[in-house]
Amino acid sequence: MSATSPLSSPSPGPLTTKGASTNIVWHHSSVDRAARAHQRGHRSAILWFTGLSGAGKSTLANAVNSTLFEQGLACYVLDGDNVRHGLCQDLGFSDADRTENIRRIGEVAKLFVDAGVVVLTAFVSPFRADRARVRALVPEGDFIEIHCAADLAACETRDTKGLYAKARAGVIKEFTGISSPYEDPEQPELRVETGSQSLEDCVSQVIVYLEEQGIIPAAA
Amino acid sequence: MSATSPLSSPSPGPLTTKGASTNIVWHHSSVDRAARAHQRGHRSAILWFTGLSGAGKSTLANAVNSTLFEQGLACYVLDGDNVRHGLCQDLGFSDADRTENIRRIGEVAKLFVDAGVVVLTAFVSPFRADRARVRALVPEGDFIEIHCAADLAACETRDTKGLYAKARAGVIKEFTGISSPYEDPEQPELRVETGSQSLEDCVSQVIVYLEEQGIIPAAA
Repeated sequence: MSATSPLSSPSPGPLTTKGASTNIVWHHSSVDRAARAHQRGHRSAILWFTGLSGAGKSTLANAVNSTLFEQGLACYVLDGDNVRHGLCQDLGFSDADRTENIRRIGEVAKLFVDAGVVVLTAFVSPFRADRARVRALVPEGDFIEIHCAADLAACETRDTKGLYAKARAGVIKEFTGISSPYEDPEQPELRVETGSQSLEDCVSQVIVYLEEQGIIPAAA
Repeated sequence: MSATSPLSSPSPGPLTTKGASTNIVWHHSSVDRAARAHQRGHRSAILWFTGLSGAGKSTLANAVNSTLFEQGLACYVLDGDNVRHGLCQDLGFSDADRTENIRRIGEVAKLFVDAGVVVLTAFVSPFRADRARVRALVPEGDFIEIHCAADLAACETRDTKGLYAKARAGVIKEFTGISSPYEDPEQPELRVETGSQSLEDCVSQVIVYLEEQGIIPAAA
């Protein structure tokens, strides 16, 4: 489009197709993911932290995020708490709602990846099938499943939010690990022993992996 | 949390509250919006382009996005086409589904704003109430409503996607401007004459506004 043509002129790309069989077409932005990665100096990816309530997912995700931010990288944490207040406020904790919750989060994470952002998600995400669907949304290598592998006894003993006690008392229904299953990742990219290792060691394990995969540059 | 403490130690913030009355709390990320703005050198905001199909919303949003990207700013376009394929693939075009579509997009835009990104959204978004709800999601000044004000006759004559012809023929139901209303913005931050002005002039109008508002630095 020339600088002086009216904006209502046909634009290049699929939107100009006359007689398209659908009114939904992917609009190709003129700034693509490769251009963003080139400008920013790093790739984007989904770091999908999964594990029981209290296993340390948000703590680890935020610590990794801080480390990436300090290196000047584009990064952002989505977690069950902030997303549940907004995008997924209409959803509960039934199996069907959990599945829809994870689906939406996966789609949002995909948008962040397209925007060039390393997006860290911290959700219990107990079902293998739900996690597999998110993995399938993005190209191979872009979905990094990180199992925060603190065991149930440790999480329940700790119970920093008092949720396990409420679940045992039946006040909270369908609570993962107590009254709803957690399906362990079978082949996660990373398994982090968040119940026994120090936070610093857990962060290092993730950062080293990202460097090895060429997602972020090796620290100077 | 000390570097050597186990990750399962209680973390600071609301997640440590015992006996919370709910299991949903906002998790305060240690990297906040202010820190991101400081690092990036610009504020974030939602640029909400609204107008009829064919009014040039996506074209203008992508052109503004390219301009921001060339200045090294964090920016991203959400449009009806890419969001409809993913996050909102379960929604149709009934009034209720349009409302839910805009709600979800507003929540996603809010997350991008929190991530420090200037997010440009290009949706017909025909209902005032839906746009007002998105405006209410973010602090004052963060929602910039941009009316792409090409008139219906111009959009229909042009009809680059052949949608108006289909709507007139009844093939597409509930098409904005034909069989579903478009409610003009009453007090948009910007009204852009996309039907008559050049793309360059439209882009300039938006960029100048962002500079005047102190959202982005003035170009050198």
